[in-house]
Amino acid sequence: MRSPALRLARGVFGQAQQTRTLISAVEGRPASTRSRHLMSMADVSRDELSQLVRNAAAHKQAVKTGGSLPKPLRTALRGKTVAMMFNKRSTRTRVSTEAAVALMGGHPMFLGKDDIQLGVNESLYDTSKVISSMTSCMVARVGPHSDVAGLAADSAVPVINALSDDFHPLQTIADFLTIYESIPAAKRAAGSGADLIPAGVKVAWVGDANNVLFDLAMGCVKLGVDISVATPKGYDIPHQMARLIEAQADGVKNPGTLTQSSQPAKAIQDADYIVTDTWVSMGQEAETKKRLADFEGYQITNDMAERGNAAKDWKFMHCLPRHPEEVADEVFYSDRSLVFEEAENRLWAAVAALEAFVVNGGRIL
Amino acid sequence: MRSPALRLARGVFGQAQQTRTLISAVEGRPASTRSRHLMSMADVSRDELSQLVRNAAAHKQAVKTGGSLPKPLRTALRGKTVAMMFNKRSTRTRVSTEAAVALMGGHPMFLGKDDIQLGVNESLYDTSKVISSMTSCMVARVGPHSDVAGLAADSAVPVINALSDDFHPLQTIADFLTIYESIPAAKRAAGSGADLIPAGVKVAWVGDANNVLFDLAMGCVKLGVDISVATPKGYDIPHQMARLIEAQADGVKNPGTLTQSSQPAKAIQDADYIVTDTWVSMGQEAETKKRLADFEGYQITNDMAERGNAAKDWKFMHCLPRHPEEVADEVFYSDRSLVFEEAENRLWAAVAALEAFVVNGGRIL
Amino acid sequence: MRSPALRLARGVFGQAQQTRTLISAVEGRPASTRSRHLMSMADVSRDELSQLVRNAAAHKQAVKTGGSLPKPLRTALRGKTVAMMFNKRSTRTRVSTEAAVALMGGHPMFLGKDDIQLGVNESLYDTSKVISSMTSCMVARVGPHSDVAGLAADSAVPVINALSDDFHPLQTIADFLTIYESIPAAKRAAGSGADLIPAGVKVAWVGDANNVLFDLAMGCVKLGVDISVATPKGYDIPHQMARLIEAQADGVKNPGTLTQSSQPAKAIQDADYIVTDTWVSMGQEAETKKRLADFEGYQITNDMAERGNAAKDWKFMHCLPRHPEEVADEVFYSDRSLVFEEAENRLWAAVAALEAFVVNGGRIL
Repeated sequence: MRSPALRLARGVFGQAQQTRTLISAVEGRPASTRSRHLMSMADVSRDELSQLVRNAAAHKQAVKTGGSLPKPLRTALRGKTVAMMFNKRSTRTRVSTEAAVALMGGHPMFLGKDDIQLGVNESLYDTSKVISSMTSCMVARVGPHSDVAGLAADSAVPVINALSDDFHPLQTIADFLTIYESIPAAKRAAGSGADLIPAGVKVAWVGDANNVLFDLAMGCVKLGVDISVATPKGYDIPHQMARLIEAQADGVKNPGTLTQSSQPAKAIQDADYIVTDTWVSMGQEAETKKRLADFEGYQITNDMAERGNAAKDWKFMHCLPRHPEEVADEVFYSDRSLVFEEAENRLWAAVAALEAFVVNGGRIL
Repeated sequence: MRSPALRLARGVFGQAQQTRTLISAVEGRPASTRSRHLMSMADVSRDELSQLVRNAAAHKQAVKTGGSLPKPLRTALRGKTVAMMFNKRSTRTRVSTEAAVALMGGHPMFLGKDDIQLGVNESLYDTSKVISSMTSCMVARVGPHSDVAGLAADSAVPVINALSDDFHPLQTIADFLTIYESIPAAKRAAGSGADLIPAGVKVAWVGDANNVLFDLAMGCVKLGVDISVATPKGYDIPHQMARLIEAQADGVKNPGTLTQSSQPAKAIQDADYIVTDTWVSMGQEAETKKRLADFEGYQITNDMAERGNAAKDWKFMHCLPRHPEEVADEVFYSDRSLVFEEAENRLWAAVAALEAFVVNGGRIL
Repeated sequence: MRSPALRLARGVFGQAQQTRTLISAVEGRPASTRSRHLMSMADVSRDELSQLVRNAAAHKQAVKTGGSLPKPLRTALRGKTVAMMFNKRSTRTRVSTEAAVALMGGHPMFLGKDDIQLGVNESLYDTSKVISSMTSCMVARVGPHSDVAGLAADSAVPVINALSDDFHPLQTIADFLTIYESIPAAKRAAGSGADLIPAGVKVAWVGDANNVLFDLAMGCVKLGVDISVATPKGYDIPHQMARLIEAQADGVKNPGTLTQSSQPAKAIQDADYIVTDTWVSMGQEAETKKRLADFEGYQITNDMAERGNAAKDWKFMHCLPRHPEEVADEVFYSDRSLVFEEAENRLWAAVAALEAFVVNGGRIL
């Protein structure tokens, strides 16, 4: 799911901000800052991200063994409605969020593009004010990032970004949970007590530079995981986004590094995790032909991993849905593949995020 | 949301009644009258309407301070399904109803126009019999009022009109809650003990004569609130509907009066509340141009209120979604504006209605 | 709802099986067989079907008298999400399933054709793995039976067929509950203790040979109820399906018999229940004209029943929605008609199925 251009600028500082300023001027009062929102990995510290992943792991364990969440959490959303505002279809995001809300006793209210169209029939400001006055949280899956940022700007309740053109924080939490679980307990203990992921782990992203990558890369830098990105020429990370990713190193001891190239073999070298996503997302069907040509040589195969000297025990990750062009069956359906654990972990990521932002009002540590 | 012609006649006494008579004849038994339904303000007495508003206020207070509804109510719908049958999109109505059902522990089942089409694939009678046999309530948002009246005619469970071409009772309850809350406690106490709204309050409606107005006006007459309506020539309240509104004075001590004109300034004089709604509803886009011309001079502005000699502390109300042509930003986003409280109050109106009609079987006093 | 050709073969043994074999080969592990699924009446024994119907009757009784299900069952699905994957619209199936899940405290998550399209954007295998990892059950309403069979093949949770082109097991349970309830208690007691339906009951199916008939006929054979089918020439039960129906007699003491003809009068003779369904289902509108001609003389009327010598107290059944061409008002809206009880019984059938397959892990006896 790709952001062909960096929409960050007009996203956070663009239209939504403009409306708020206007309204604040008219109303003579400052824009609301009552709730803490989850827009991207830029919103959480290294320790907070680590804690979110640990919480997700603990809740998963509790349900798998005991059948339900620990006692205060399993009724934490009872009587409460979580609005799910989805401008685009998204099976995994929808199922994981609905199931997470239900697990905590709440009511997930799904509003698709036929139910609500952000900014079409009334202003984002009006919609945010109204829906946040009747619900406990808004989970939004939008196009332009400015839509979810605009919802958050004046919301009386927490807003969780469930996928925008620029970021996908719930996927990132799920991805680090998947990586965390895949590390042998012994190796995990060898790391410093405070480190979620032991030093020296390398992630390779081979494919398109999109929202999933942007948030994953921010998370990697924060958590001290090196990430090496290979994209075809012309598909690299937009400059301003790359700067935002690297800025996650600020104040972090031993941050991860971001490297970029157009050579999959270079990215893959010594990689413990090879990650990709679809090259042709919803709405991009028209340019399919050109994209398939541009991404030639980017399909993940065992041969590619071998020739590129990936780590001996390399694992494969993909946020799904998957198409055969970006990864061969021999990898996707192999023991190296973590894709189905990764998909299930979307549920536990959603539980951890709802707990942190809705139940605990944004207090994570 | 406008009713271009009065559909009341063929609504209540038309097709639905015909079908029922036919079926009663075939079955040899009388049409069902098991449940009490909420079709419009005509269905509740002055005291019942006052009590619904007071209950809504109390429940709002309880949740705002204690986090949940009082004990028996918060689980009153547990295990129960409320069918929400929406032939047209309606964000506020949907969100408020779903959230209200969830707050009471129930399951709101949303059926949009792609899920069910009243009267298309089977008769209203069949649909009503079947769905009411599996649920605890039907909340319907329809076009012709005969659709919701038809559903109610043979339903085994209460039916709540969540907006028809002719009436919008949940909006009216929310509107009176908003007015009630906006009156200073001291002034409220000055009124007679039994009066929800103190004597002398005046409401002005400036705009189109539609379903929201019809129910609001019936409520005003019942509660002793004068309502003055200004509509462009050719857009006035249909004669039969005006008679129905005035008939709400029957048996009421000191009822409110309904006055009509085509001069906003006349309606606004001494008004405590200036109310409007959109002029161009869903499905009327074709006549937009003509309507915009016909409604020239009807935009609510500070200047209009001043020239019209509105009450010093006049407030603005609008059921949303709002378009700029009917009200200026300087009013809509000002301290005079009650629109967001009014929107939130849809939630508490729904709670009160579900409590009265579903939980308490239609007993309000 | 008709299956113009027998899709059973490529359904169960076709595409889905192929994919699984491929994947098992790649993964080097056997296909999953963890959960027990409900695909058709072929999946339950005579005693199990009887027990499902008795459970449904008991739960209906409990709720009708006490207001809720017995204690362990009323919270059995609390915190759990049941995915409802509906490729086609289906009001009764949707409402009954949602209401059943809610009655047991669970969250029904409705996914329509705009939310998910089986096999379109990713393989059935991937979808099944992902959704079953985040939910407690998948209830699927599909076209080709291979879709629901494919979902079940690799699901980690029980899959319930909520209507495929070939089978409709929840309807069959509801139908036998309806028949069971319509038998006077005295006559019921006269049967052997173990028999749900006393010996000698005859069902006539007059109309199209479709999925509803196929499962009903399998149930009849299992339960010792004779079923006589009249379909126009060219619309009879496909040969392989007829064999599958007759195979339900294996190991059953006193099984029912299946007889076929193209003469309604012959099928109706001595019938206690006359059953039909629509002749023109969704998607068949194009051939409507031809079908109406082919089915001339198949409308159920009092005259047809009299001339055909149906049993004196014959009853009429239809799974709805109903169109006038297949049954006259004089029958449909008469005391002989069980159609609305039958529709309501879909709810209790769903409760019994969810209890058996989800709560009790497939243990029925």
